[in-house]
Amino acid sequence: MTSFRKTPVGILGATGVVGQRFIQLLEHHPWFEVAWLAASDRSAGLPYAEATKWRTALPANVARMTVSPAAPEGAPKVIFAALDAGIAQELEPKFAAAGCAVVSNSSAFRMQEDVPLVIPEVNPDHVRLLETQKWFRDSKGFIVTNPNCSAIGLVMALAPLQRKFGLEKVFVVTMQAVSGAGYPGVASLDILGNVIPYIAKEEQKMEEETRKLLGSLNGSGIKDAQLAMSAQCNRVAVEDGHTESVSIKLGTNASAEEIVATWSDFRELPQEKKLPSAPPQPVIYDVAPDRPQPRFDLERGAGMATSVGRLRPCGIFDWKFTVLSHNTIRGAAGAALLNAELLKCQGYLD
Amino acid sequence: MTSFRKTPVGILGATGVVGQRFIQLLEHHPWFEVAWLAASDRSAGLPYAEATKWRTALPANVARMTVSPAAPEGAPKVIFAALDAGIAQELEPKFAAAGCAVVSNSSAFRMQEDVPLVIPEVNPDHVRLLETQKWFRDSKGFIVTNPNCSAIGLVMALAPLQRKFGLEKVFVVTMQAVSGAGYPGVASLDILGNVIPYIAKEEQKMEEETRKLLGSLNGSGIKDAQLAMSAQCNRVAVEDGHTESVSIKLGTNASAEEIVATWSDFRELPQEKKLPSAPPQPVIYDVAPDRPQPRFDLERGAGMATSVGRLRPCGIFDWKFTVLSHNTIRGAAGAALLNAELLKCQGYLD
Amino acid sequence: MTSFRKTPVGILGATGVVGQRFIQLLEHHPWFEVAWLAASDRSAGLPYAEATKWRTALPANVARMTVSPAAPEGAPKVIFAALDAGIAQELEPKFAAAGCAVVSNSSAFRMQEDVPLVIPEVNPDHVRLLETQKWFRDSKGFIVTNPNCSAIGLVMALAPLQRKFGLEKVFVVTMQAVSGAGYPGVASLDILGNVIPYIAKEEQKMEEETRKLLGSLNGSGIKDAQLAMSAQCNRVAVEDGHTESVSIKLGTNASAEEIVATWSDFRELPQEKKLPSAPPQPVIYDVAPDRPQPRFDLERGAGMATSVGRLRPCGIFDWKFTVLSHNTIRGAAGAALLNAELLKCQGYLD
Amino acid sequence: MTSFRKTPVGILGATGVVGQRFIQLLEHHPWFEVAWLAASDRSAGLPYAEATKWRTALPANVARMTVSPAAPEGAPKVIFAALDAGIAQELEPKFAAAGCAVVSNSSAFRMQEDVPLVIPEVNPDHVRLLETQKWFRDSKGFIVTNPNCSAIGLVMALAPLQRKFGLEKVFVVTMQAVSGAGYPGVASLDILGNVIPYIAKEEQKMEEETRKLLGSLNGSGIKDAQLAMSAQCNRVAVEDGHTESVSIKLGTNASAEEIVATWSDFRELPQEKKLPSAPPQPVIYDVAPDRPQPRFDLERGAGMATSVGRLRPCGIFDWKFTVLSHNTIRGAAGAALLNAELLKCQGYLD
Repeated sequence: MTSFRKTPVGILGATGVVGQRFIQLLEHHPWFEVAWLAASDRSAGLPYAEATKWRTALPANVARMTVSPAAPEGAPKVIFAALDAGIAQELEPKFAAAGCAVVSNSSAFRMQEDVPLVIPEVNPDHVRLLETQKWFRDSKGFIVTNPNCSAIGLVMALAPLQRKFGLEKVFVVTMQAVSGAGYPGVASLDILGNVIPYIAKEEQKMEEETRKLLGSLNGSGIKDAQLAMSAQCNRVAVEDGHTESVSIKLGTNASAEEIVATWSDFRELPQEKKLPSAPPQPVIYDVAPDRPQPRFDLERGAGMATSVGRLRPCGIFDWKFTVLSHNTIRGAAGAALLNAELLKCQGYLD
Repeated sequence: MTSFRKTPVGILGATGVVGQRFIQLLEHHPWFEVAWLAASDRSAGLPYAEATKWRTALPANVARMTVSPAAPEGAPKVIFAALDAGIAQELEPKFAAAGCAVVSNSSAFRMQEDVPLVIPEVNPDHVRLLETQKWFRDSKGFIVTNPNCSAIGLVMALAPLQRKFGLEKVFVVTMQAVSGAGYPGVASLDILGNVIPYIAKEEQKMEEETRKLLGSLNGSGIKDAQLAMSAQCNRVAVEDGHTESVSIKLGTNASAEEIVATWSDFRELPQEKKLPSAPPQPVIYDVAPDRPQPRFDLERGAGMATSVGRLRPCGIFDWKFTVLSHNTIRGAAGAALLNAELLKCQGYLD
Repeated sequence: MTSFRKTPVGILGATGVVGQRFIQLLEHHPWFEVAWLAASDRSAGLPYAEATKWRTALPANVARMTVSPAAPEGAPKVIFAALDAGIAQELEPKFAAAGCAVVSNSSAFRMQEDVPLVIPEVNPDHVRLLETQKWFRDSKGFIVTNPNCSAIGLVMALAPLQRKFGLEKVFVVTMQAVSGAGYPGVASLDILGNVIPYIAKEEQKMEEETRKLLGSLNGSGIKDAQLAMSAQCNRVAVEDGHTESVSIKLGTNASAEEIVATWSDFRELPQEKKLPSAPPQPVIYDVAPDRPQPRFDLERGAGMATSVGRLRPCGIFDWKFTVLSHNTIRGAAGAALLNAELLKCQGYLD
Repeated sequence: MTSFRKTPVGILGATGVVGQRFIQLLEHHPWFEVAWLAASDRSAGLPYAEATKWRTALPANVARMTVSPAAPEGAPKVIFAALDAGIAQELEPKFAAAGCAVVSNSSAFRMQEDVPLVIPEVNPDHVRLLETQKWFRDSKGFIVTNPNCSAIGLVMALAPLQRKFGLEKVFVVTMQAVSGAGYPGVASLDILGNVIPYIAKEEQKMEEETRKLLGSLNGSGIKDAQLAMSAQCNRVAVEDGHTESVSIKLGTNASAEEIVATWSDFRELPQEKKLPSAPPQPVIYDVAPDRPQPRFDLERGAGMATSVGRLRPCGIFDWKFTVLSHNTIRGAAGAALLNAELLKCQGYLD
């Protein structure tokens, strides 16, 4: 048996909610190991255990690591980025320019023409776009992004249907968990016994990211999917898990049985290649009349599977159904991690 | 000054969540006074204070009233009914046959051809339908109903637009409070940290009641509004207040300013006649980007006004917006009470 | 009828949770009217409606008021202060030195020897202490404080028993609402589905404030009550209302009937003088086995009454019981307002 | 390697919240396997998957099992009982009389003189009491019980201190999760934004069970611990996890360091014998100032460890601290399972 060395990775924005999820998900990862943690100047120089308000058991080796300044000097070549958009806008290009593979959960560059926005089950071919980045040409560094936490569950449910039946129109209304807003994020006085019918920029992100994700790579660019879309986003008093009520118009007729079978049979490159974070079954249909529900169905596929339920005819379009996805695993840290596994598999991390 | 005697009224199903709301709303009512309370056999014969798990201050005169059996003998001529559908199906006709005006919050007879389903601001003329009821012909008794708690806020927001611009299509996704399910209703283990994407029969009720409410009285029947509709109903961890994300296609073009003005200027018969429970402004548009919210906007118009906000263009239809309505006041006891005030004003309670 | 001019008052820290409560409670106040609002430099110069994230209906005259800088120049002579302790420490003395009556809800000066810590029903005579303040001697300005939101309900329940039976030992465990921490205060990720068994400095405040409140004025100082005390403070997922489990050892024997009667009969100076914010019955005992509860009993006496329930023998001391008090009304803005009414009544605001 | 056959076990009350926990915990158990499920007559004859409202993934073999009537005929010799007290009172003796080892989570027989009330880390020797049961003498059947969900975490924290320093007085106030009341249990309308300061019979159970658990076996009976105790029990809006604020008076002086060391070093028979469900460290002290908290610390030791924190001097007794325990694992199904493992280890299940 040959010896195997794990790839050292860094985490930018390591002390936040998503940064902490990266550390959890990487603790026993077969390919990657955390070698470097960076955060804001306030935290730099502190042991990680002191810099973060860690909530559950902290891996001892990570607890002792000193938080680095958020600069590429001394950083490993693979960087998971969990930064706010404004900071990402400034920092991620520095790391890419320095030759790093920046696997980003931020919204800053998702819609930039030459930046791949990727879900490995949906559009792994879009990764090639990174070769058009100036950073890549100059230094082999690049930025690859994953979608917003509210878009990813939706697209996981839509992609198999789009391929098989075509997809013309999508209505979606979300009921999103507070963890999606980071920490401290949503004040308890704002959400106890309440619904907030507004999340800044979220609806626009859902609509434009969905079109790019379901679009096609032609030449050196993405052609957006021709899809009429309308999203409404709400915040509810749920800790984790985004629930979405969806109505769709397909390109061709499909029966309920065909749709459920299409979801249940959906297996793609991450499943074929057995990527470590890939859920065995990426889309799980629940036949119970009142599922999926965040409290009970969120952990399917270790938080990486998308749950769908309540498929029934729609009075306006063809079908309506409910989607549930884990917003800080499949919708954030797990999404980036699976992207990194895809990049590794495609040879971009060597 | 001439003396004025209040009309004695009875409450069928007096011990439940809606029954209790009736008692609150009737405590200082200028036209009606509670003279009779009925509930299931288990409660009959007990003082009301013992029969119900009353939660707030109980009017002393009501506390001492003895709960009557749920039968028309000895009941007053005006009956507010807050019964489960199955029981209403059996009991309400008995009271109507005995000559009572049954002002019902139950779903049992809402869709029956000769039963008016009424919102006084929207379709007060539908009341006339009661004259076609066999009970009315035989004994002057009748049944008049108000809509489901999820339909009423929606229709309050749609009706002014329908009149002015026409209305072709309506998508709606609800986030409904637990009080809508009565008591004990939703188990805490089912809703803490959770969303339940299912409420039995609710979507069908919303769709068919909306069409009847927005329909027109022609001859001796209601012609449903020609309206494509799709409703999805969810339960969230909110005590009171149904929030709804709505998208609509109008019959003619309308600007945001025209729509907001149409809502703000909406005044109808209950306002003109100054019915005691009518909110001065039935539809209130909130310009804040993140309102309405149940915790902060529910009590507008003493729980009888509908709040609307977030009007913005829809990527598929014309406009999307958020509606909030108090489900146990405007959506239940207050709705029935306003119906009774309308009936009184129209001479049907004399 | 002689004309009557209301006393103009100012609010320091007008944009916070407690500042907003002051505005609500003063809206229709018969003696005071809001004439001046001050907040941090960030807000100064803005119309109040823009400076605050106001949640419910804002009185129109207040909405238009311009927020002043937090300095005594131009401020009225009566100031309600709703500042964080650190800022209060610096600002309140400036206002007192400038001749203002500072009626403070802050903890900054509560335990200072010459500062009255007052509940009008409990120790109105302590107010005289203000005459020993240097500010008073120099300019007639002074600082008077009300207790912490967790101490006030407890002391309202203890004071009548102390007088009648003596009081030796008090155990108390609190379950406190999130509004006690201000806004944004407690993050939703910290409290949904959770209990936080820690509130910084709260236990110490409860213990020392209780002893000062129940102490006696002798000469020119307060002699603390000789009371063994142990407090444990917890935060729970409740919007408003602090619930407390209490065990006490009295100085002499008392039956349950005597204790309940002592609470129920408790009427003091605020009730005798009919101060506008005084609840008619300051301590209300609820005989139900499972009350008081924040959701249902908080608004008694317009949020100014203390609810007590579940009196039963204690296995270690004499009696145990549950106390409920509204933390932002009786525990903050309402407490200061009642103090101001007491001061007016005593001639200190003339 | 010798083959090993697992002991077949049955579950009485298999469809409830605790019954479901038994199934989860037994799914991969090395010694026991579920061979028989019984529930009320309403469920008997149905496949388990239909009889229960199962919330998470159901083991396929259990899903297909037919629910048996709740009678000893055909039942295995080891029975886990998760019944309401009233039903347990009637059914458990029938199973014991039929020769079954009834390992019960019910309160029905806990305080009966000849019934062991056992926590394996605390009083494993009390098991011997079962030999005095008439059922044991007649048929080798018996009943062994575990404590109430609110008592077990407390006693886990108290037992090591009692042994080392003696224990004289205990004050405890609980904040208990809704799952402790079973399903449907607490209505959401009763607990959202609320605290219920009452759980029927809970305070008495905590006090008397604690004394029995910490008592000593002498001759053929238990001598209760001489312990003054006072418990107050509250329900809060938490899904799982009972938090308790505790004050104690020890028999001898002990420093904070000694107390923390006593908890941290506590290892007993279940740890020595490596019983499958025994947590490696049964009592875990958390040094953070604001822990333990249910959302973040509940799963320690797979839900079988007790978390303790906030040790600090008490103004009346010696020390106060916070205890957290998982109420449906260590407080119910896991407690019974560990009892069964102890019984097996002691030879009573052969």
